[in-house]
Amino acid sequence: MSTSTDMKGQPVDKAMLDSMLRHRLFYTPSFEIYGGVSGLYDYGPPGCALQANIIDLWRKHFILEEDMLEVDCTVLTPHDVLKTSGHVDKFADWMCKDPKNGDILRADHFVEDVLETRLRGDKEARGLAIEEKEETDAKKKKKKTKGQQAVKLDDDVVKEYESILAQIDNYNGEQLGELIKKYDLRNPATNLQPTPPVAFNLMFQTSIGPSSNLPGYMRPETAQGQFLNFHKLLESNYGRMPFASASIGKSYRNEISPRAGLLRVREFLMAEIEHFVDPEGHKKHHRFNEVADIELTLLDRETQLSGQTTVRKVPIGKAVQDGLVDNETLGYFLARIHLFLKKLGIDQSKLRFRQHMANEMAHYATDCWDAELLTSAGWVECVGCADRSAYDLSVHAKKTGASLVVKERLEEPKVIEEWVVDTDKKVLGLTFKKDAKAVESALAASTQEQREKLAKELEESGKAVLEVAGVADGKVEFGKDLAKIEIRKRTVHHREYTPNVIEPSFGIGRILYSLIEHVYWTRGSDGGDEARNVLSFPPAVAPTKVLVVPISAKDVFKPFLQQLLQKLRAAGIPSRVDHSNTSIGKRYARNDELGTPFGITVDFQTVKDGSITLRERDSTRQVRADTDKIVATIQSLINDSKTWQDVEAELPKFEGQEL
Amino acid sequence: MSTSTDMKGQPVDKAMLDSMLRHRLFYTPSFEIYGGVSGLYDYGPPGCALQANIIDLWRKHFILEEDMLEVDCTVLTPHDVLKTSGHVDKFADWMCKDPKNGDILRADHFVEDVLETRLRGDKEARGLAIEEKEETDAKKKKKKTKGQQAVKLDDDVVKEYESILAQIDNYNGEQLGELIKKYDLRNPATNLQPTPPVAFNLMFQTSIGPSSNLPGYMRPETAQGQFLNFHKLLESNYGRMPFASASIGKSYRNEISPRAGLLRVREFLMAEIEHFVDPEGHKKHHRFNEVADIELTLLDRETQLSGQTTVRKVPIGKAVQDGLVDNETLGYFLARIHLFLKKLGIDQSKLRFRQHMANEMAHYATDCWDAELLTSAGWVECVGCADRSAYDLSVHAKKTGASLVVKERLEEPKVIEEWVVDTDKKVLGLTFKKDAKAVESALAASTQEQREKLAKELEESGKAVLEVAGVADGKVEFGKDLAKIEIRKRTVHHREYTPNVIEPSFGIGRILYSLIEHVYWTRGSDGGDEARNVLSFPPAVAPTKVLVVPISAKDVFKPFLQQLLQKLRAAGIPSRVDHSNTSIGKRYARNDELGTPFGITVDFQTVKDGSITLRERDSTRQVRADTDKIVATIQSLINDSKTWQDVEAELPKFEGQEL
Repeated sequence: MSTSTDMKGQPVDKAMLDSMLRHRLFYTPSFEIYGGVSGLYDYGPPGCALQANIIDLWRKHFILEEDMLEVDCTVLTPHDVLKTSGHVDKFADWMCKDPKNGDILRADHFVEDVLETRLRGDKEARGLAIEEKEETDAKKKKKKTKGQQAVKLDDDVVKEYESILAQIDNYNGEQLGELIKKYDLRNPATNLQPTPPVAFNLMFQTSIGPSSNLPGYMRPETAQGQFLNFHKLLESNYGRMPFASASIGKSYRNEISPRAGLLRVREFLMAEIEHFVDPEGHKKHHRFNEVADIELTLLDRETQLSGQTTVRKVPIGKAVQDGLVDNETLGYFLARIHLFLKKLGIDQSKLRFRQHMANEMAHYATDCWDAELLTSAGWVECVGCADRSAYDLSVHAKKTGASLVVKERLEEPKVIEEWVVDTDKKVLGLTFKKDAKAVESALAASTQEQREKLAKELEESGKAVLEVAGVADGKVEFGKDLAKIEIRKRTVHHREYTPNVIEPSFGIGRILYSLIEHVYWTRGSDGGDEARNVLSFPPAVAPTKVLVVPISAKDVFKPFLQQLLQKLRAAGIPSRVDHSNTSIGKRYARNDELGTPFGITVDFQTVKDGSITLRERDSTRQVRADTDKIVATIQSLINDSKTWQDVEAELPKFEGQEL
Repeated sequence: MSTSTDMKGQPVDKAMLDSMLRHRLFYTPSFEIYGGVSGLYDYGPPGCALQANIIDLWRKHFILEEDMLEVDCTVLTPHDVLKTSGHVDKFADWMCKDPKNGDILRADHFVEDVLETRLRGDKEARGLAIEEKEETDAKKKKKKTKGQQAVKLDDDVVKEYESILAQIDNYNGEQLGELIKKYDLRNPATNLQPTPPVAFNLMFQTSIGPSSNLPGYMRPETAQGQFLNFHKLLESNYGRMPFASASIGKSYRNEISPRAGLLRVREFLMAEIEHFVDPEGHKKHHRFNEVADIELTLLDRETQLSGQTTVRKVPIGKAVQDGLVDNETLGYFLARIHLFLKKLGIDQSKLRFRQHMANEMAHYATDCWDAELLTSAGWVECVGCADRSAYDLSVHAKKTGASLVVKERLEEPKVIEEWVVDTDKKVLGLTFKKDAKAVESALAASTQEQREKLAKELEESGKAVLEVAGVADGKVEFGKDLAKIEIRKRTVHHREYTPNVIEPSFGIGRILYSLIEHVYWTRGSDGGDEARNVLSFPPAVAPTKVLVVPISAKDVFKPFLQQLLQKLRAAGIPSRVDHSNTSIGKRYARNDELGTPFGITVDFQTVKDGSITLRERDSTRQVRADTDKIVATIQSLINDSKTWQDVEAELPKFEGQEL
């Protein structure tokens, strides 16, 4: 696992960061006074505002920029929908149980943890660990002494372990079970091997309606609602293709072992795009040229399968050209995701796009890349970008008989040849009686290949055998009197196709947490003060934009404050006033922890000449000007039309006190 | 039931409106290709945008205006929390079953429906119905002939029925059962009396975690998460009172019989405020004077109990003064709700505040008023505003032992007298052995009243009896040797209290639907055209602000269009272009249905002099000016700094064609 650093390149002090986030109420364990429920977190005021700003930026960057059709579908989903989509059967993780204490373990995490512990022990035995990682803090030392003892491994074993870890997401339950046996992996709590992995479905189940006869689930993704509305959305887009729908909403996964914090939770906010595209024409994208030169950091499938995690930087244009990324539309969205994360303030050196391995991909996907962000918990999947092919639309159409296709007028009519079945209804009724309808449907639903085969059989033996589910033993025999099957020419004016779907899917909570780690740093102690925490959010993302600090609570400042607040509100700049009695420095320090980018001090000079000071969070430098100028300046800083350097060049510096 | 009208005073053509809303994809039944699930609806693009704008306005009007602390808590809630809050035992509706066909009926709606049908039959028999209500449309006539035959009732019976209907929300299950028997109310489908009402809990149940041992529910309201975080929120507000938290999120109620449409659904968006206030000092509000003169339309408890539904208009200041509304804080929020609904575009003549009757109030409330909006389905509760007293904080504190109180430093220390218990631990241990701890806790938890009683018993007989759950038969006897109970003086420097909670709670979907009915009207046919639907949303609320219509798809317009769109985007004005080949009039008509307030035409004159036309939706009048002027004008119209009249006075009229 790579080590993560804070914004200034220092190791992240996770304990200090966590305590600050809890104290400032960014988020907090839900139901804590009831002992809490693992995997459930509430957002407090700054977390809520941060989340809203991320969503706002997302909506502008994706939905508005590309005229996407936003929908808001229900979380409650009936069983049949998720049965068809494959989630009832396949949306599961592998779960083991400790035979003695009943611990429930997620199999892949268990394998990963035990192997990582052994590798750490090996490094320690070789005397490498401390030199390599500068593991100086008390916590990590403790971890080492608590875990397996320092045992040196054979060089070959180290390589084997590293190779397993590089492709840990590629194993199924059986394979994970084999790894547990082969390497004798034991639960540290009992020193016993856990039971073989079994599938555990991750959906929360419930029952809809008063008679309890409609089983349902809380959706595990927002995508299905978008697929089911495909035809209505296509109509509301006046039939034009390609187009995208988008949705922002909660989804639910009953994780086997949620992590502490926001990285693996059971209820989370997702933002998902379903871009519907014609599968013919290589899934070109008309704006691909705008992004072709953008360089992405890629970790492809082959590299992982060879047991490596080496990334390479490739312009997305070249990656698509070389076939590394499957098509332009997929590549376009990878680049757009990159730009979005950059805008948010994500550290580009802690972002990589990792391609899924074959076994790892969701049951529907044909190619998939995850945007992963490096945090103190390692590389975390924050955005998935999958080509779901025509899978979902096809299975839902097949199950319901609904038309989830695009019908496109051909510029020139086309003559096609096709196998046609003419059924004699009279003979059908006399021969099959109550089963007549089933046989007729089976004939009508037969594919071109099946028809060709049936026609050949009829031709050769005068009889043909058709599979009909639920009739006799599943097969019925019929002759030429019942159905004529022949190839005919037909002029078609339309082309019908099921669109493919490219799906960028964002886990907002994971992005939010990773962002916090990326913009976190500690200001060195000046003049004997304690080190101070800072969150350097870009102004557009910061929960509050401006902290207003009156130098004292005296009445003389009140009219200035009121006027200032009104001007900030009119300019649409969210601000807060800190009236408390603590020193100005302390008040600013508190707001550095909240990531508030700007501070305004109202002081005695203000009373004299109406001027106020503006402080920038990261540099703590200040300028001074009249209210209107300061408000306009803040607006330019938030909408990125000016930098702090520009402001310092324009407005007089203020050096009253270092804050 | 009152009849509702559209914006121009015409009866609402519900069928036409519904078809338009579905066609334009404001909302649509969820999972329709799977046959749908009653009570679940998806929002399409215009519905989504409308919802987002309502939420945006709500956030500005309430959260930002009053510095509320926004939180986002989980929907998944463990059983214990909702057991304590009373929801597991009491959050239920009364349900009956038809003994023959198994129909499940919500008891109060069943009683209401049958009595209303009988009253309609009576009116018809008296020859009143048609004159009174102008029931000319085919649908209503059908309803009458399908239902009970026209039977005249005694005048006394009519009065009885009307009185029951006026207080229908005041009956419990037993009383509803009595009404069914007394008036022989039968299910029209089978002509049988349904079974007696039983309670049906409205929460969706699920199970959290892989071992299925943590039962949970999907929250029925956002409030509980806010209460459980009370102490953290108070701290993050630096201990200052009063303050409010607020939350916007989905809640779930497993309705027995959901209505078609958005008015009674099983999954819905709520916006809730929990305003925490000191119960002493009559719950004054420091901004009450700002709203005291606002006149509200009130329907109080007494009027309803007397079988009437007559409203009266009262300034909220007077209503509080007269004790009609319990306190200033409750009154303040009623007025703020009124102002919010007005801003949204709600028709003031279709808004009333109805006070809850005693039996109707939620189990926690001490006073409650609903903002009801008149729609074609009658008066619909859209906002509840309840005084929940200290109920929730008290029960959660009692159950968990957490401190959910405010500790306030007294300006002057106070000497108080209180009953104190001194327990002799040695005697306690010897007497009660393993139960000692339980007895000690019971003594420590005893109230002042209980202590006074115990002291008196000890004084009189040397012995006292204490209730201790789970010990012996629930009662233990002890003597003076075990505990000394006496009254003592103590100087206190702090005051501790459990805040009361005023809760304004908004059903966003109901408000959204009612608003649509209130701004809906049909433009008269001009020149033989069909009547056209219009939704006159205020500009700030409209899903899209501007429709841009190029007069043709010719290349010559493209540079103008691009420039215009970029200027609109820079000004933050959401717009859409309609490139289709239909006439400009048809394109505008389509957008009148979406409620788009402004239209811009780019025509051949634009190519010559750069001028464009601006059309106003309701008047269909147009002005013409250059792009910058038009964009600035739209901005002023959206932020309400100009009216269309102002614009017509300033810019040259354009009369090219009536659109």
